[in-house]
This record gives sequence, C-alpha cells and structure tokens, in this order.
Amino acid sequence: MTIASFAFELIARQGRARAGVIHTPHGPILTPIFAPVGTQATVKAVTPAQLEEHGVTLVLSNTYHLYLRPGAELIAELGGLHRFMSWPHPILTDSGGFQVFSLSENRRVDDEGVTFRSHIDGSLHRLTPEIAIEVQEKLGADIIMAFDECAPPYDRAYNERALERTHRWAERCLKAKTRSDQALFGIVQGGIFLDLREQSARFLTGLGFPGYAIGGLSVGETKAEMHAVLELVDGLLPEDKPRYLMGVGTPQDIINGILRGVDMFDCVLPTRLARHHAAMTRTGRLNMMNAAYARDSRPIDPECTCYTCRHFTRAYLRHLIVAREMLAATLLSIHNITTLITLVSEARSAILAGRFEQFAAEFFAAQETLPS
Amino acid sequence: MTIASFAFELIARQGRARAGVIHTPHGPILTPIFAPVGTQATVKAVTPAQLEEHGVTLVLSNTYHLYLRPGAELIAELGGLHRFMSWPHPILTDSGGFQVFSLSENRRVDDEGVTFRSHIDGSLHRLTPEIAIEVQEKLGADIIMAFDECAPPYDRAYNERALERTHRWAERCLKAKTRSDQALFGIVQGGIFLDLREQSARFLTGLGFPGYAIGGLSVGETKAEMHAVLELVDGLLPEDKPRYLMGVGTPQDIINGILRGVDMFDCVLPTRLARHHAAMTRTGRLNMMNAAYARDSRPIDPECTCYTCRHFTRAYLRHLIVAREMLAATLLSIHNITTLITLVSEARSAILAGRFEQFAAEFFAAQETLPS
Repeated sequence: MTIASFAFELIARQGRARAGVIHTPHGPILTPIFAPVGTQATVKAVTPAQLEEHGVTLVLSNTYHLYLRPGAELIAELGGLHRFMSWPHPILTDSGGFQVFSLSENRRVDDEGVTFRSHIDGSLHRLTPEIAIEVQEKLGADIIMAFDECAPPYDRAYNERALERTHRWAERCLKAKTRSDQALFGIVQGGIFLDLREQSARFLTGLGFPGYAIGGLSVGETKAEMHAVLELVDGLLPEDKPRYLMGVGTPQDIINGILRGVDMFDCVLPTRLARHHAAMTRTGRLNMMNAAYARDSRPIDPECTCYTCRHFTRAYLRHLIVAREMLAATLLSIHNITTLITLVSEARSAILAGRFEQFAAEFFAAQETLPS
Repeated sequence: MTIASFAFELIARQGRARAGVIHTPHGPILTPIFAPVGTQATVKAVTPAQLEEHGVTLVLSNTYHLYLRPGAELIAELGGLHRFMSWPHPILTDSGGFQVFSLSENRRVDDEGVTFRSHIDGSLHRLTPEIAIEVQEKLGADIIMAFDECAPPYDRAYNERALERTHRWAERCLKAKTRSDQALFGIVQGGIFLDLREQSARFLTGLGFPGYAIGGLSVGETKAEMHAVLELVDGLLPEDKPRYLMGVGTPQDIINGILRGVDMFDCVLPTRLARHHAAMTRTGRLNMMNAAYARDSRPIDPECTCYTCRHFTRAYLRHLIVAREMLAATLLSIHNITTLITLVSEARSAILAGRFEQFAAEFFAAQETLPS
C-alpha cells in the first residue's frame, strides 16, 4: 500500500519518549501532538482562525456524527471536510466505531458490521468496515481509522470476541481503502488484558499500517492498567510509525503517554470543560464561576500566552459566565486548548534537547501545588 | 464645560448627509458610524479581536445591565470598562433610562428619578440623573448619555410630562458630571410630536452639549414619522456637533438616517438576528436554517469581505445551525456587523466623493431585488 504524501520521521528519542514529524497532504504535524476535537466539523465555540493562531495543527472530527448529519455525500460534494469546515491543515477522522458503541442505543453487532439507531432521530443505520472507509474517503481526512468493536475494559470474554472481529474488520478496512492520499491507522484493542493487547499489536503490525492507535483506554481502567498497556504496546509497535492514544486529554495522561512512547493525543476535554466553566492549568482546574474570582484581576494563568490570558481577567471571565454570555465558552476553550498545545510543544522541545526526564519530573512535582 | 480630547470635525456635507471625525480619548471615530452593542460588556459571541479585524471602532454598552451585574464599582476597580472588556477603542454607554422603561417591571417614576426592580432577581434599585452619571463615570466610556424618561411615541400628554422631566434631568446630569475625559450627550425626546421635538432640540442646544442623541425613535412609529422628526431636528441641532440616532440598525434606516443628517447609529439587530439564524444583507435577510441552503456552496454574500464570507459556505452555516453549534452565532454575528460597518464606511466614502445621492439611490433601487 503506497501512501502518497504520508510519512513519519522519528527525529529524537529520550527513554521511550519520541519527537517526530508526520508529513501529510495538508502539511506537517510535529509530534508529540494534541488534537482538539471538532465533532460536528467545528471545534465548539472556536473559529479555525483562532485555532491556527494558537498553534493547533491537527483537528479530529467524528465520522459517526458527520455521517448522520449533514452526511458524507454532502461534505464530499462541497469539496471535502477540509474545505467544508475551512481547516486547510491536517484532519483525522475516527471510524465511527467508538460512537456507535457509546452514543447509540439499540445497536446489534454481527460479524459483518453494526446496525444502530441514530442518537439524533432514532433512524436505523448500518456501519460496516467497508462503509466506514467509504464514508471516511468521502470526508477526505489525512488520517483515517479502522472500524473496530469497543469492548468494556474488564470483560475478558467480550474482549476476546471483539478483538477477533476487530482484526477481521482491520483486514477488510485495508482492502476497502481506495484513496492513496489518506493514511489508514489500525487500532490496538484488548481491554486491560496484556496478552490480548500483545496479540492485537502483533496482528495489526503484521498487516503493515502507516500508523497505530491504542484504543479502549481512558474508559474506566486504572492509571496503572493504562500505563501497563502503553508500555507493552510501545515495545511491540514498529518504531518508525506514529502511535496515537485515542481520547486522552488531561495534562497528566498526556505526559504519562509521552513517557511511554505515544506521539498523538486527542480529546474533547478542553472544549467540554470550557463549556462547563472550567479553566485547565497544568496542575488542575479552576471553576471560573467561583465567587472567589469575582474581583480577581489576574489572568487565568499569568504564564499562558493565549488570547484569553493576554487580554482578560478572571473577574471578567466570571462575569461572562454569571451573565450566561457565549463568549465565556470561546475564551475558555481557547485557553484550555492552548494549555495542551503548549504542553506538548514544550514536551517536544524537551525531548529534542534531551531533557524530557527533567521536564516530566518537574511537571509531576508541580502537581503537588494547589492551583491558586 | 471643557471636554478634554473630545471634538467633532465636520469634514464634508452632501445635502443633509455628513462625513466627519469624532475625536475621543480612545481614538477617532469616522462618521457616519455604526456601533454594535455589547450589552453586558461583550458583543455577544464575538471577541474584541474579531470586532477590530472587521473595522469596528465604537462599541455601545448598557449602563442598566452593568450597574446590576457585575456592578460599576467592580468595573472601576478593575480599571474601567475599556480594560474590563479589553476594548481599547471608543465606547459609548447609554444612561440606563431606556432599559429602566423597557426591561424593568414595577417601576415608579418621580421628579427625582426612577425606582425599579431588577429584571435579574427582582431586587429594588433607584436611578436618578446623578446616579446615572456617577455609574457612567465609574464605567469610564468616552461618550456617556443623559438620563431621560422614555414615553410611548403617540401619547401626547405623557410625552409633554416626560419631556419636561427629561429637560430637568439633562440639566442635573450636566451639573453632576465631574470627569473631563467623557463627553455627555443630551437626548432629544418628544415622541412623534414635531412641536415637542422642536422644543426639546432648542432647549438641549441651549445647554451646550458636545453631542446630541435623538431618542424614542424606532419604537413603533411609522417611517414617515421617524423621517419627519429627523428632518426637523437636523435643522435645529448645531452643525458642529455629532448627532446620534439611538437603537437604529437596519441598512434601510441607517441610509435614511444619513440622508437626514445623522452621524451615529447603534443597534442589537446584527447580533440578535445572528442568534436567530438570520444573515443580513443590504437588501434583506437570509434565514440560514432554510433547507434551500443545505447544498449551497456560495458564501452568504459573494461581495462581502468578512471572515465568514471569505471562508464558509451557506451549506456549512446551515449545518452549524441545524447541529446547534455555537460557532453559527459567532460567524453570523461577524457577517451581520460587517454588513453594517461596510455600509456606513461606503456611505462615508460616497459623501466625501460627493456622490452620496447616487449611492443612496442605488441602495434603494437594489431593495426591489429579492435576495437569492
């Protein structure tokens, strides 16, 4: 399989931590990278210009949502997802698998695919590996994902069955793929079971994907279990391909992931927290509705360089929240996304400078400090 | 009364239409000007950076709302309204008079002032001319307004009583004013009654304000009645002071106002319509939720140069609205504000070039064309 314009360069390692560049048809992605999520072809409450201004390069969008509304045909007709949402930089779409299992009720899984009802209007739909690829080819993201079955992390029997199916589906996704300008990533599954994870990493590696995701984590397992999976998988996946930890999003999980060889992260956390009045910092969260901030003339984080922190006080943000102004979600989203973008960017610099161990140690030492 | 840093320069006239510059402590305002409204110290769903980028120079904010929440003392403590909302350009605050009469229930007016209940929590408050000036001095806008009583446009007896009171209050506002870096405008009232309007314009002119507002219009009277008032007042107010038509906001009313000597306009219309899915054009409104736009690859207005029209299709905007995404309000607000800013800016160029009559004639001729 030739992937035109797609390549991963591993530039530096320190311990398991990696710094690299993913080349895509829409430009390079410097790794480690955090991708904000634009579920419905928009990162909620933030314009593409604001994302660009704050250093975002990769945006994730959800195949399940776009397939249901406005439909992949419509987006294809309008020139594809990049043009539709006016994001000329790299985009990654997931396969819809996770959403079918988390959002839709009344789903029925068989070896062919999944039949499910829309969470919007209850209408009946079917996704198969072939349809998931077809939809993602219509959307036209730079990186697309294999269609997988997501099992609850502790259910051994379910994970065994789901893994077998996920592997068959991975083969079918590769076979269904027709576009040469998209990189299809396989997804390592297996819950918390290290032998299943090993089996999955070995099987998918054998199929020769241009990148590998680690799925089914950050869904209820302990941090120790998550780390054990990451460490195992790090030793099994090929060094010269990017590794993507799906749905992970706290500063702590991101640094722990980088320490264990992960290159890519995505999460709704920064924008979702913003809509619930929380400002993210490296050490915690500030509930900006708190009365303690009513007369606070400081920015959220004096060291942050985002638009919000350069221009607005905590008192103003609290006023916007109390007065139910939409601008609050925009300004907090910008800040929260910047917090994670700055974190991965500094982690990358530290890896390149050979001082990532110290960077991570200082990061975790700071966690003891309570946010002001 | 000396107004430091405030001055109006009348640069050109064509018929009654005027082009000028209002100099303020926060920079010049080129007139005719349209000011978007930031009721609660934010133009809803739009950042100050986005306003700047789209040519906004003057923003209006509401004294009534800010007095109730978060309070003028808090804003003063945080450095005043410009710093609080991060708008380093000119700001105008109204006096709270109009809101007391339109938003608050259970109000009681006496010659001293108005006692009313908050629309937020029902708490009891009192505004007098002296308090309205004190609050506006704490907020620190460049242009502040006299406290007035707003009467229904067709009630002669009420207008006579209210006008008498408004004139006494105007004198008290002038007397209460202490800051030399704010320009206090008087407000001509009198409903649709031309003799009352004349009486008001003459009385206020005698007090020597640095600018004059025309209040109590666009509240239910006919266009012919509005125009008659504007034409009368144009002949009575001093040529060398700016005239401000409060709360006016459609492209048609703005051009009609400029034709009758008005220099300044403000209105919530562009941002309110945006939150109700309507895109403004010079000739009408497009309901962007309309199914007709589902596959429409055109921008709202191919001739508009705003961020929204440069980057997004009608189909995308409709998708955002249908999917209830906040970005829809932001993108439509940016477009609608730009429509009015571009309109007044082109009107100014036309006046300076001596071709405003033609500009206005073409503008009204185009109204016959249905929007596509």
